Amino acid sequence: MAGFWFTEKQTENFGITMKVNRTLHTEQTDFQLLEMAETEEWGNMLFLDGMVMTSQKDEFVYHEMVAHVPLFTHPNPENVLVVGGGDGGVIREIMKHPKVKKATLVDIDGKVIEYSKIYLPEIACELENPRVDVQVGDGFMHIAESENEYDVIMVDSTEPVGPAVNLFTKGFYAGISRALKEDGLFVAQSDNPWFKADLIRQVQKDVKEIFPITNMYLANIPTYPSGLWCFTIGSKKYDPLQVPDEQYFDIETKYYTKELHKAAFVLPKFVKDLAGE
Amino acid sequence: MAGFWFTEKQTENFGITMKVNRTLHTEQTDFQLLEMAETEEWGNMLFLDGMVMTSQKDEFVYHEMVAHVPLFTHPNPENVLVVGGGDGGVIREIMKHPKVKKATLVDIDGKVIEYSKIYLPEIACELENPRVDVQVGDGFMHIAESENEYDVIMVDSTEPVGPAVNLFTKGFYAGISRALKEDGLFVAQSDNPWFKADLIRQVQKDVKEIFPITNMYLANIPTYPSGLWCFTIGSKKYDPLQVPDEQYFDIETKYYTKELHKAAFVLPKFVKDLAGE
Repeated sequence: MAGFWFTEKQTENFGITMKVNRTLHTEQTDFQLLEMAETEEWGNMLFLDGMVMTSQKDEFVYHEMVAHVPLFTHPNPENVLVVGGGDGGVIREIMKHPKVKKATLVDIDGKVIEYSKIYLPEIACELENPRVDVQVGDGFMHIAESENEYDVIMVDSTEPVGPAVNLFTKGFYAGISRALKEDGLFVAQSDNPWFKADLIRQVQKDVKEIFPITNMYLANIPTYPSGLWCFTIGSKKYDPLQVPDEQYFDIETKYYTKELHKAAFVLPKFVKDLAGE
Repeated sequence: MAGFWFTEKQTENFGITMKVNRTLHTEQTDFQLLEMAETEEWGNMLFLDGMVMTSQKDEFVYHEMVAHVPLFTHPNPENVLVVGGGDGGVIREIMKHPKVKKATLVDIDGKVIEYSKIYLPEIACELENPRVDVQVGDGFMHIAESENEYDVIMVDSTEPVGPAVNLFTKGFYAGISRALKEDGLFVAQSDNPWFKADLIRQVQKDVKEIFPITNMYLANIPTYPSGLWCFTIGSKKYDPLQVPDEQYFDIETKYYTKELHKAAFVLPKFVKDLAGE
């Protein structure tokens, strides 16, 4: 179809609406409804089960903030795992870190990878990098089968509905802990504090019971519900707020900066209360 | 009307949409279309010329961040002026500062004040405070007629269309400078960096030519365009980033904290570039 307005209901009673020039691809995959569309405001966009996953115009915020906060926190992130993230945006940011020798991406839905390469080429651009191992498979199972293997794990999942529902359980965080090396750390997207307060409370509680260092940081993503997105970090050793100055180096970014790395952890009062800080 | 969805087009091609239980009041005032509505997600809301001004659920972010950042920056903010802000939210926050002896509110549209008292009572609740002087009048003229009078001026305007268009001009900032005492400072809402980059660049440039200390800070307001809102500070003497620790005191807030006061000035890279920092 062409020339219509698409509305994502972010809650039962509120949503965003945008002009779509044309749909580029629509397919019910084995896991979810995959839609690619060209929008007037945000460029090409990927939707899964009717929810905005990424857009060409604002994708940099999410991808930079998922990748660089944990990677600058770890002094030597050689082996990195991305669960989900088939569009390749997190991988693209990881590849800016020369210390990373190998980044494994495990997405359950090969179609996301396939169509991101076609319609979101500047996001998927590093998926063919020789340092990247792209696997189509179940991230939950991959984690369960890994032990003492990864320095950093990034969970770039959809909301906790559909194929991602297992990725918001305490068992999953325990599996992540086993899959990480003894000084490893992980980050997971944790939805937004305006509409998903209960989820954030639960994730923070669960992660705190497993990881000695737990923290939450925020970023502004205009096409995501409420425009304010949460990321949860669980770390065995390294504190994201105690990164030695010499560990930073210059990278090309549009959102992340060394100063923002710290400031993103300073939460508004009502979010701090949710996080139990 | 009752039981419909209202859509605010934040740009030509993007907007937010929300379920309205019923409209509470609709009136073309002498200055703008004033609408009050009861929404399912955000509680009662005020719209001017079809744009969201405030909602019961998220109003605290804007009002706290407009008021507390400048008030904690000034060591002795005795005399404060609010231009616009007829809903009373900024006044409510100002009244949490015992050093403020008098707060003058000048809104061009008395109807905003009148209907906010009826439908947004927890926002308008301090408009009758004896320390508050509410005036219905032209804020631009009030500023032009004031000299060396105010410690802090807060510009709580609508977008630069309709009655607020004068409030985004260099002449207005020069007037503010004259209306302030020799150690005064002001803050103005400055829209959002995703859709109004040119406006932000211009405001920053204009304010920098008049005030020795100029800075920008951010807050997440989910019902405002892009969810990321900018505030510009111009100050003659006091630096909002160099507030002495003893100048802070505890106040009841839901968004602002002493730590966030500083962190809100740490801008994402693309916003920093806009601000010319």
